[in-house]
Amino acid sequence: MKIPKSNFSEWYNEVLEACDIIDIRYPVKGMPVYRPWGFGIMKRCFEQLERLLDESGHEQAYFPILVPDDQFGKEAEHIKGFGDDVLWVTHGGNELLERKLAMRPTSETIMYPMFSLWIRSHADLPLRVHQTVCVYRHETKATKPLMRGREVYWNEAHTVHATEEDCEMQIGEAVRIYKKFFELLGIPAMILKRPAHDTFPGANYSIAFDLLMPDGKTLQAGTVHNLGSKFSKVYDITYTDAHGAKHDVHQTCYGISMRCLASVIAVHGDDKGLVLPSLVAPVQAVIVPILFGDAKEALLTKCKSLADVLDSQGIRARVDARELRPGEKYYYWEARGVPMHIELGPRELAAKKLVLVTRDGEKRTVDEEKAVEEARAMLAAQDARLLERARKHLQEGQHTADSLKKLAETITKKGGFVKIGWCGEEKCAEKVEKEGCADIMGTEHGKLESLKCVACGKAGDAVWAAKAY
Amino acid sequence: MKIPKSNFSEWYNEVLEACDIIDIRYPVKGMPVYRPWGFGIMKRCFEQLERLLDESGHEQAYFPILVPDDQFGKEAEHIKGFGDDVLWVTHGGNELLERKLAMRPTSETIMYPMFSLWIRSHADLPLRVHQTVCVYRHETKATKPLMRGREVYWNEAHTVHATEEDCEMQIGEAVRIYKKFFELLGIPAMILKRPAHDTFPGANYSIAFDLLMPDGKTLQAGTVHNLGSKFSKVYDITYTDAHGAKHDVHQTCYGISMRCLASVIAVHGDDKGLVLPSLVAPVQAVIVPILFGDAKEALLTKCKSLADVLDSQGIRARVDARELRPGEKYYYWEARGVPMHIELGPRELAAKKLVLVTRDGEKRTVDEEKAVEEARAMLAAQDARLLERARKHLQEGQHTADSLKKLAETITKKGGFVKIGWCGEEKCAEKVEKEGCADIMGTEHGKLESLKCVACGKAGDAVWAAKAY
Repeated sequence: MKIPKSNFSEWYNEVLEACDIIDIRYPVKGMPVYRPWGFGIMKRCFEQLERLLDESGHEQAYFPILVPDDQFGKEAEHIKGFGDDVLWVTHGGNELLERKLAMRPTSETIMYPMFSLWIRSHADLPLRVHQTVCVYRHETKATKPLMRGREVYWNEAHTVHATEEDCEMQIGEAVRIYKKFFELLGIPAMILKRPAHDTFPGANYSIAFDLLMPDGKTLQAGTVHNLGSKFSKVYDITYTDAHGAKHDVHQTCYGISMRCLASVIAVHGDDKGLVLPSLVAPVQAVIVPILFGDAKEALLTKCKSLADVLDSQGIRARVDARELRPGEKYYYWEARGVPMHIELGPRELAAKKLVLVTRDGEKRTVDEEKAVEEARAMLAAQDARLLERARKHLQEGQHTADSLKKLAETITKKGGFVKIGWCGEEKCAEKVEKEGCADIMGTEHGKLESLKCVACGKAGDAVWAAKAY
Repeated sequence: MKIPKSNFSEWYNEVLEACDIIDIRYPVKGMPVYRPWGFGIMKRCFEQLERLLDESGHEQAYFPILVPDDQFGKEAEHIKGFGDDVLWVTHGGNELLERKLAMRPTSETIMYPMFSLWIRSHADLPLRVHQTVCVYRHETKATKPLMRGREVYWNEAHTVHATEEDCEMQIGEAVRIYKKFFELLGIPAMILKRPAHDTFPGANYSIAFDLLMPDGKTLQAGTVHNLGSKFSKVYDITYTDAHGAKHDVHQTCYGISMRCLASVIAVHGDDKGLVLPSLVAPVQAVIVPILFGDAKEALLTKCKSLADVLDSQGIRARVDARELRPGEKYYYWEARGVPMHIELGPRELAAKKLVLVTRDGEKRTVDEEKAVEEARAMLAAQDARLLERARKHLQEGQHTADSLKKLAETITKKGGFVKIGWCGEEKCAEKVEKEGCADIMGTEHGKLESLKCVACGKAGDAVWAAKAY
């Protein structure tokens, strides 16, 4: 890597290219190609998320990509929020379609008419489905790879409940799942309830997972929405209770996009390139034979059998037998964030030893037969260090300000999350934006604290402000 | 199930709905909703395919869905083959796009310009990538769920090679992978080299995997194409050899769609509903407590711990603790094709026994501590029986005919694959279609046999004719 991480923006672009994450040269703006290494990391992120969702009662499904214009436009707030960003399919071959079809910018308008058909009685509830798909937004703002684009790879979950209380409980469950997910990636999040003016179009309220980037800006990497009965009324999703009475259902939806890949890269990476948590690394341990003298063949055989042993025990291993010097191989795999490399030369072969080296530099010479257990322990310890380091970074990125001037100073000098008081008025939020150089990201989930508004001095609540990507 | 499988077409539609595979009521023609049970089966099919591809040196990637019209239209045969079926995106919001964008009907025109950037020298070859995505075709013919639709869920692999020989070897490798894949699903295939007039647009030749459906019609469920250097010339994919000379690359591509799900349903299902090979069953063993008397709580606890044991040993198990009679539960899970149910009542609890019953009716009372090993063996034996039964069905569906009249008779009375002679002339193929009521599906992969043309009597090759979906 040529660029140090302290120059985050350029470092990020270099890593995306040099570490085989994506190729941004594809000729449609905001639609990069995911190269195998980048896709392999992202796929494993989503596999973890899907597992957590499945384990907590969600079922994976697949809904169509296209939605007829009349069906898309039913919920007024929702269409206001998404209408300008929609990509429209108008022709099949040379023929004009009878109805124009929207490429899903999100799937409420696609799923909910089906929910209306599926849900009849209380026994059909709760309904919890999710899907991992791409959604499409004709972004007019500048795009940023894996952060803001026109093709958004994501997982979206949608749930339906009989009562407001069940719906509220599901919100709590979703927050727990997402918190767990980001922790598996070694990333702590600020969980913030967005102010009304920044709520998902059509929702009662929205909770966001905001992550701290190395440059002090924040990244919204997941959102959880309580939709109440707004969509239920529009798409006629009702159930009949035991007494034959009809009721509106209550709904939630939540999503996490390819920004989780951007986050893994941004939060953990260093001057040498990527640093991957072991759960999402396509290769967890790369075995590098130190080839010299006569031992070449015996060494390679040993390396391969070691890889088989590790693989069979659930550690994804690969032998790098290329005709390169070991140093070049270490450099190559370090840049790609592989959590561990294993050195095996004639000396180790003779002594039945191995040298295990984690991506963050822990080095141990271990007995060959203890390879699996030692590798597992070292990977787990490194994963814990990654999370700890990210936690510390987030803590150090939390500040407070009791005036707009101080807020502006903190944001411009340090960035991060700044706790301020806010009365809840939109015009004060505008002042915060103009004079404080920050957006109000919301109140901390589960924590309420009174604090005078930094803009007008009236009574208010503690909220976190930040400059977001 | 109300409809017997002997009435295949109606049985198929009933199964799709009654067994929670898809919902065809979504208001865009040819775009069904995949319900969780159906999606769960299909996802596991593609996981197996992806594993086979990864193990043989392919790498999974993700390429964008949209392709600009000028890039799409470069290869003349290809555009002729796909142009009329393309869905076009023309607007973003209310704004007309500068260039219209095609939704991929397949990804050659999207991937190959990138390959042109990626491939420089011999060292970059072979390149083997694959992706599991949806492709889009504005079908004007009647659509049939999971067989012909506008949103095609599939895996497509694309490979690039230095020489014609390497390319040819990759075709062999692709055929081996696909053969293995269908065998894992318990489905034998006819592997047929399509005649020139039925070759993929832009390919030198195409090999198809044709399956025999219960009604005697055949289903093309996978295709492998040798593209030679046709696309290489158009998209300028070249490499420089050790002497500095530039060469065109040689390419292959191959794909398998959601028709693999249709095939699993059609080939294995019976009058009771689905029958799933254990590899792709979302639930492999459902545990049904026989609840009566005082043992209820102890029984449920036992069922749950049994499910945990099975799960930990790689057998996907679920307890059905619903308030229904056991018979209703067996009926429910049989219809959904679960490979095994396990009965556990007070008598079994007391004797530390379990009753294992496979979907095809093998029943064994086994010691509790042998549950895992017995279940595994019974599932494997049932999978083998499914493949054997399907093989027998395919063998019995193979006929020969030495005249157009006999061909027509065989096709209309029995269906299946009929071996005939064909001289290779397209006008004879048209005669076969009109008078023989069948299409020429091609020569058997790896088998050449001389046989006089059934239409003109001239020298020819043995080919298989059939009526295809």
